[in-house]
Amino acid sequence: MAEKSCYDYRIEPQDVDFTLRATIPALGSAILNTAGIDAHGKGFGVDALNAGNHTWVLSRMALEFDRLPGQYTDYTIATWINEYGRVLSTRNFTLTDAAGSEFGRAVTQWAMIDLASRSAVDLSWVGDAHAEAIVDIPSPTEKPRKVRAVMPTLRAEHRVVYSDIDFNRHVNTLRYIEMMLDLLPLELLTEQAPVRFDVHFLRECRYGATLTIGCESKERGAAFEICDEQGTAAVRASIEWK
Amino acid sequence: MAEKSCYDYRIEPQDVDFTLRATIPALGSAILNTAGIDAHGKGFGVDALNAGNHTWVLSRMALEFDRLPGQYTDYTIATWINEYGRVLSTRNFTLTDAAGSEFGRAVTQWAMIDLASRSAVDLSWVGDAHAEAIVDIPSPTEKPRKVRAVMPTLRAEHRVVYSDIDFNRHVNTLRYIEMMLDLLPLELLTEQAPVRFDVHFLRECRYGATLTIGCESKERGAAFEICDEQGTAAVRASIEWK
Repeated sequence: MAEKSCYDYRIEPQDVDFTLRATIPALGSAILNTAGIDAHGKGFGVDALNAGNHTWVLSRMALEFDRLPGQYTDYTIATWINEYGRVLSTRNFTLTDAAGSEFGRAVTQWAMIDLASRSAVDLSWVGDAHAEAIVDIPSPTEKPRKVRAVMPTLRAEHRVVYSDIDFNRHVNTLRYIEMMLDLLPLELLTEQAPVRFDVHFLRECRYGATLTIGCESKERGAAFEICDEQGTAAVRASIEWK
Repeated sequence: MAEKSCYDYRIEPQDVDFTLRATIPALGSAILNTAGIDAHGKGFGVDALNAGNHTWVLSRMALEFDRLPGQYTDYTIATWINEYGRVLSTRNFTLTDAAGSEFGRAVTQWAMIDLASRSAVDLSWVGDAHAEAIVDIPSPTEKPRKVRAVMPTLRAEHRVVYSDIDFNRHVNTLRYIEMMLDLLPLELLTEQAPVRFDVHFLRECRYGATLTIGCESKERGAAFEICDEQGTAAVRASIEWK
């Protein structure tokens, strides 16, 4: 049975906003990069999968931050996979500062797709082939919550450009997160209260598409829906400050 | 007399586009982060300056890449300051792969501004106070070229949002670069030919401003101008593939 893997980071100047504390997208980026590095190192990264014409696709994500650490804070991201279902594998994360205090955690759920058909692949064989990579430790918080239909009170349009897309020619996860959070007032984004952010990725958006980002304002947060030209939801999310 | 300082990096999955080679903004970001880390380590970083109510502002930049390295390429950025003028200091960079082959270089020119008045400060005292940081090695390529008035053949609008701004509440350098390059066709952006990119930062743009990005198409490149609501040029740039 494997153990958690740990990766060291520092909050760099490009990770902070004008309050000099890390942004949610910057920490989200470090979390997702950790997933990539860990999978790569263990032999089931995107590069290894591509050889077999498969790739990982992030399906759902829950991020929780008790506080957003300041510039130059050293921290460690621990990550472990504790579940391979037929369709989704679950990868977990905790974020801990140098004093050993946990300030954040994440649960992500990933599907494997076939690059030709872009449809989901049965993951059972991965669970068997990489059983030694499974760590028998529960997820550090509740799994990503479902986000129901959103009734936008605010809308923005965005045409997908070169700097939005990833190696797959689809909008990269961080850009979706930025598009949604950018609709919130600065006062909420710089709140010094614990925050939880749930995101569901329903459909991939491609280069050149014009997306509509809808935001439904709530008392201490918001719900979001990103739709393609046909009005089909591609991403739904909700954020809540305590 | 000081020597060049070297920092090691790797082209990570988040640094590449769908051709699996590094993007110009990703390498530009590594270059600018190197400037920040090096200045911080030597005691004249943004954090030290802020204490005296000053900060560094990037005024001009020239980037040259002979080729864009592939994912997981290890490389080293060497950096050195070789000049403190009254208004601008010059910081240089070379990018070299693990085999010792130089594949890129940059020359950046920085002004120091007073945070209260946001006007330039005489740099002579920095040249004196940090004379030991000056390295007597010429810049690795021609200094940033002047970009004359641009006659846009293509325009886009962009409202400055939270994820565009830096610790100063101004649009961060990388976002300007992305806004401009995003107007180019994918065929040019994924060209496998040497490229040179010159950028002049003329004025700072703030949160909430609506910017117009103009692009004048040229035979093997383009010129750009980013203007604020008043039509005043904030950034001018030109890019050319060999």
